[in-house]
Amino acid sequence: MKQAKVRLYVEQGLGEGQTIPLTKEQAHYLFGVMRMAVDDPVLLFNGRDGEWRCVVTVANKRNGELLCEAQTKPLQMPPDLWLCFAPIKKARTDFIVEKAAEMGAARIVPVTTDFTNSERIRQDRLQAHAVEAAEQCGGTYVPEVAELTKLERLLADWPDGRQLMFCDEAEVGSAKRLAASEGGPWAILIGPEGGFSEAERAKLKVLPFAHVVSLGPRILRADTAAVAAMTLWQQALGDWQ
Amino acid sequence: MKQAKVRLYVEQGLGEGQTIPLTKEQAHYLFGVMRMAVDDPVLLFNGRDGEWRCVVTVANKRNGELLCEAQTKPLQMPPDLWLCFAPIKKARTDFIVEKAAEMGAARIVPVTTDFTNSERIRQDRLQAHAVEAAEQCGGTYVPEVAELTKLERLLADWPDGRQLMFCDEAEVGSAKRLAASEGGPWAILIGPEGGFSEAERAKLKVLPFAHVVSLGPRILRADTAAVAAMTLWQQALGDWQ
Repeated sequence: MKQAKVRLYVEQGLGEGQTIPLTKEQAHYLFGVMRMAVDDPVLLFNGRDGEWRCVVTVANKRNGELLCEAQTKPLQMPPDLWLCFAPIKKARTDFIVEKAAEMGAARIVPVTTDFTNSERIRQDRLQAHAVEAAEQCGGTYVPEVAELTKLERLLADWPDGRQLMFCDEAEVGSAKRLAASEGGPWAILIGPEGGFSEAERAKLKVLPFAHVVSLGPRILRADTAAVAAMTLWQQALGDWQ
Repeated sequence: MKQAKVRLYVEQGLGEGQTIPLTKEQAHYLFGVMRMAVDDPVLLFNGRDGEWRCVVTVANKRNGELLCEAQTKPLQMPPDLWLCFAPIKKARTDFIVEKAAEMGAARIVPVTTDFTNSERIRQDRLQAHAVEAAEQCGGTYVPEVAELTKLERLLADWPDGRQLMFCDEAEVGSAKRLAASEGGPWAILIGPEGGFSEAERAKLKVLPFAHVVSLGPRILRADTAAVAAMTLWQQALGDWQ
């Protein structure tokens, strides 16, 4: 059996015997860029039905069709972890979304804070980055990228029972570990370049669901901090245990 | 006392009363880009003498001079950790070097492996990235970027007593923790996109100083893996403890 060289996210339901019509972009990628032909295998996932081995049944430049043959992976949900972060420069914001998908966040929440430079995001573009990262990392789930929210509003509407890992760069040095007893839904909050304002820090530190965590003695850029924080969380409480 | 807005790496020795002549590029940055003037404060470090508060004494477009006033931080050496990685696409290689400096690696070692795409690096450009990252993250040390080495050669010349954290993406799922007893000098080895070859994996796994570590159930890109691996190491054995 030929090994599939391509892994694609699709919207449609996947199941044995299902046919999957391709969009113009997907057909261009498979047949124009990757030079695939009828009978070549492709792996598909849709975030709901796991991963399926499919074969090309129709291969035209502008359209095509795949046939679902067999499931190759069940759906593997990531732990219930949100990554909340303040958007920074475009390339680094893209990186944070990519990293969140790879590291296994369930939801990505861009937030504006007092020191956030960027007041707008392209939610659709960030969502496309999350899809691409899921295609790449072999995951069967794509985290949802939420609309940009004000930090104040996010905290006012905070869901009952969700804990918050607050990575405060002013806490440099004091490494508090996450205890394995603190399971359940969590969120990580990463500040913008320049960190949180004094008012924000004061407010965050007294929240009953907030846990202040240090990320070592050097000041990390926001994208580095996001990966480091997700690593600590996944190892202590997530699916790296 | 005015707060310094700029933090610069210089080659010269730093000490009380020392004058520091600026290069054309440094003068352009301080006086052209940052619009600084005589008496403005600047923080300097050189990787040896800690961080010093200096003031501008001469401010011309093409040259300038600073005077060292007082030490603001002692030299803080990172733990004796090497980050060895296979160079990937340019932007991601730059990121890995930046991340290694921020996360506190002492030495950055680019290695060619069986599946490495890139057979050349610009060592000077990568070193400049490490300097910039150190300026940014508040560190007082700049990790050295070594010349590109073949993995085979690196392992043949491996220093006595240095342990190796080998991040094998084929080990997905089995999360072995680093034990706090395994202190001393270490290195982390991150493979290229496409991972290590079977021959390399077989060779690495039987090395007496190698420890195979898993980075969770998803396949991470090399730059993500580098940050995640350094996080695990710093928390278990390094200066995040």
